[in-house]
Amino acid sequence: MARTAGSHSDITGPRVRAAALRLFARHGFAAVSMRRIAGEVGVQAGALYNYTPDKQTLLFELMQTHMEDLLADFARLESGADALARLEAFTRFHIDFHSSRPDEVFIAYMELRNLTPENFAVIESLRGAYEDGVTAILRQGQAEGTFALPDARIATRAVIAMLNGVNTWFRAGGPLTLGQVGDIYWDMVRKAVSA
Amino acid sequence: MARTAGSHSDITGPRVRAAALRLFARHGFAAVSMRRIAGEVGVQAGALYNYTPDKQTLLFELMQTHMEDLLADFARLESGADALARLEAFTRFHIDFHSSRPDEVFIAYMELRNLTPENFAVIESLRGAYEDGVTAILRQGQAEGTFALPDARIATRAVIAMLNGVNTWFRAGGPLTLGQVGDIYWDMVRKAVSA
Repeated sequence: MARTAGSHSDITGPRVRAAALRLFARHGFAAVSMRRIAGEVGVQAGALYNYTPDKQTLLFELMQTHMEDLLADFARLESGADALARLEAFTRFHIDFHSSRPDEVFIAYMELRNLTPENFAVIESLRGAYEDGVTAILRQGQAEGTFALPDARIATRAVIAMLNGVNTWFRAGGPLTLGQVGDIYWDMVRKAVSA
Repeated sequence: MARTAGSHSDITGPRVRAAALRLFARHGFAAVSMRRIAGEVGVQAGALYNYTPDKQTLLFELMQTHMEDLLADFARLESGADALARLEAFTRFHIDFHSSRPDEVFIAYMELRNLTPENFAVIESLRGAYEDGVTAILRQGQAEGTFALPDARIATRAVIAMLNGVNTWFRAGGPLTLGQVGDIYWDMVRKAVSA
């Protein structure tokens, strides 16, 4: 995508993406104009096109960056351990990662339908790669005999859906710490997949 | 709400709601005008106001009816059985109910933010009543000694979130029947809450 070089762009580009993220999450992609994003950033509407070719690209790049960050952090988890330890690490990681990015998570679910088919395919493939990583842990546990699952792919989706639910109710500063939430969900995930 | 009496209204009212449901699910509440709903039904825009005072009321009533139908059907499940049998019945019921109403489910999640605060409070209270019903089953199982849960309320949300995930991937006519999907999820739900 077109982006001007130099320090001004380096500072303003992230501010454009942060403003788009905030406005899309609050009002929805369809209701937010490029003019409104420019206003939030404090630049002229025309100047916005130095940082992004269009609103679709802004949405796509927010979702793509979110998924690429998720995959990069997931890849850093210990992969040499047994499946039970790996699944616990995944469970706590997934909760921590998503609870720290509520706007990105909200947009990732709410605005899928507003992606062009080409962009949707890219995001779907990144999601598929994340699911593949979780499925590999579940299959390892099946091979090790600690997990028993009728269908590892469906179990992957079930576990991810269960954990995604945390963002709908967890609030930092509430009665539970994120560590306690992790304990509670790990207890359920561990049992759900157990042999 | 204002609604004209008589057979014309009786026929057109449901068509207005069906059109609103379809259009909201496909394009989003914010992007759909009353004029467009009228066009879909095949009446003049002004005539729509014989059936609903405004678009907000249409959205609210769709979500309210969905939740009231859910609660009514849930209340018909056997309540005299042990917690394990009740939780299995709930699991299969939740999957069946929601998979048969993809547009209502989609709207129930996507358009919460477009409700007025008063309408949002009503929907939240209906959701709370549904959660209460599931929590009661989990607490019964704790009392009977078959379930062990660190937190019955969070377990309720975890189970519902897991089951809600079915709608994101299940397609009728695919490789699995809904009964098989129910078997797979019940295996995981049963183990997740087990003592």
